[in-house]
Amino acid sequence: MPHLAYDSVIFGFNGKQLKILVLEYHNTDFFALPGGFVKRDESVDDAVKRGLRERTGLENIYLEQFHTFGDVSRPAPDVMRTILMNNGYEVKHDYWMFDRFVSIAYYALINYEEVSPLPDELSDSINWYSLDELPSLMMDHQQIVDKALETLRENLDKKLVGMNLLPQKFTMKNLQKVYEAVLGEKLRRTSFQRKMLSKDILVRHEKLFNGGAHKAPYLYSFKSKIVKEPEKV
Amino acid sequence: MPHLAYDSVIFGFNGKQLKILVLEYHNTDFFALPGGFVKRDESVDDAVKRGLRERTGLENIYLEQFHTFGDVSRPAPDVMRTILMNNGYEVKHDYWMFDRFVSIAYYALINYEEVSPLPDELSDSINWYSLDELPSLMMDHQQIVDKALETLRENLDKKLVGMNLLPQKFTMKNLQKVYEAVLGEKLRRTSFQRKMLSKDILVRHEKLFNGGAHKAPYLYSFKSKIVKEPEKV
Repeated sequence: MPHLAYDSVIFGFNGKQLKILVLEYHNTDFFALPGGFVKRDESVDDAVKRGLRERTGLENIYLEQFHTFGDVSRPAPDVMRTILMNNGYEVKHDYWMFDRFVSIAYYALINYEEVSPLPDELSDSINWYSLDELPSLMMDHQQIVDKALETLRENLDKKLVGMNLLPQKFTMKNLQKVYEAVLGEKLRRTSFQRKMLSKDILVRHEKLFNGGAHKAPYLYSFKSKIVKEPEKV
Repeated sequence: MPHLAYDSVIFGFNGKQLKILVLEYHNTDFFALPGGFVKRDESVDDAVKRGLRERTGLENIYLEQFHTFGDVSRPAPDVMRTILMNNGYEVKHDYWMFDRFVSIAYYALINYEEVSPLPDELSDSINWYSLDELPSLMMDHQQIVDKALETLRENLDKKLVGMNLLPQKFTMKNLQKVYEAVLGEKLRRTSFQRKMLSKDILVRHEKLFNGGAHKAPYLYSFKSKIVKEPEKV
């Protein structure tokens, strides 16, 4: 379908650091979020699911739609033309990809050590970049990343429940590491713990006996009744 | 632009009740949210602003985009054809309006006593309906209303700050009425007040002396530093 595209901001977390999946197009200096187009006979959610699989090799990722970018200034026919030409495609000047597109944007938060993204035929590479080492992204993709991060930071506790980012049982320290990576700041252990416990979203389980000399921490899991199922796309 | 439409959920509140602005198309039984299309040379935000003005007469309303509806099942060429025919338009079977559309949805929350919506040339009437007396809406418009309400209920305090729904200074009771209308339930006065004061979003001012015999309530305003500017469209 002309005029309709999607972009996906895939946040990755490995227990310590927050990263973002970025691909680089063949023979260009263009770094971009994994994105794509919508087919006539598929829903937008299905298109995102398919496109992400085709472009990155990632499957079964929980994505949430967060914003649609529809500025008049966002079409970039020159960028499109360069990508296509440098991949050996010859196209006419009125090719549908050169027209105006709005982009419906989705984000996900996954453990990047559990997946192995693969570049598609248009891309040289697909890599995880730390937030503070992102390359310069093409078009309005940096704006899309900023908005995704802003959205992820709101009500993070509710989002984490459905995301399978943490193991089913985790320590307060595990949870704090996620918050610190997403918020981009160090948090005080005692006030973080107090705040989390006051939210009534955690169930406390047995202690984690790891044989160490220091005090064993409790294990927690999320209360399942507050699970808000994110859109599975 | 083909394939791109918007719909707007305009919530109205008059100090007591939450209502939604719904229009009825001429000579049909179709009730719908105010919506429209996007021109080639205008951003989606501008299209919504223009469309809302043309269809309802409302201007300068703070709208926030909340979701894009892109199911394959949502196109409704028969509905479009009926609306156009019953308004005296003859169109070909492959007219662009009969094609598939995704709808970028926006919501607003305004004081409905301060505005006078006017029906456009396609519509018989445009009226405020209580949530529990909504007529049966066409296409997926009920789903759009449900999602808008769900979104409005999340972080309502942050949303209210930018919305100019309340006067600049208001009582705790004024604020509670908004919450009760949006959440659709009665709240306990003491726990509501405690919760609001704990959020650190309010500034307390002088008491409201209204000459009554009962205890004068304090006036409050929102702390301006936490103002998160909503998109003005």
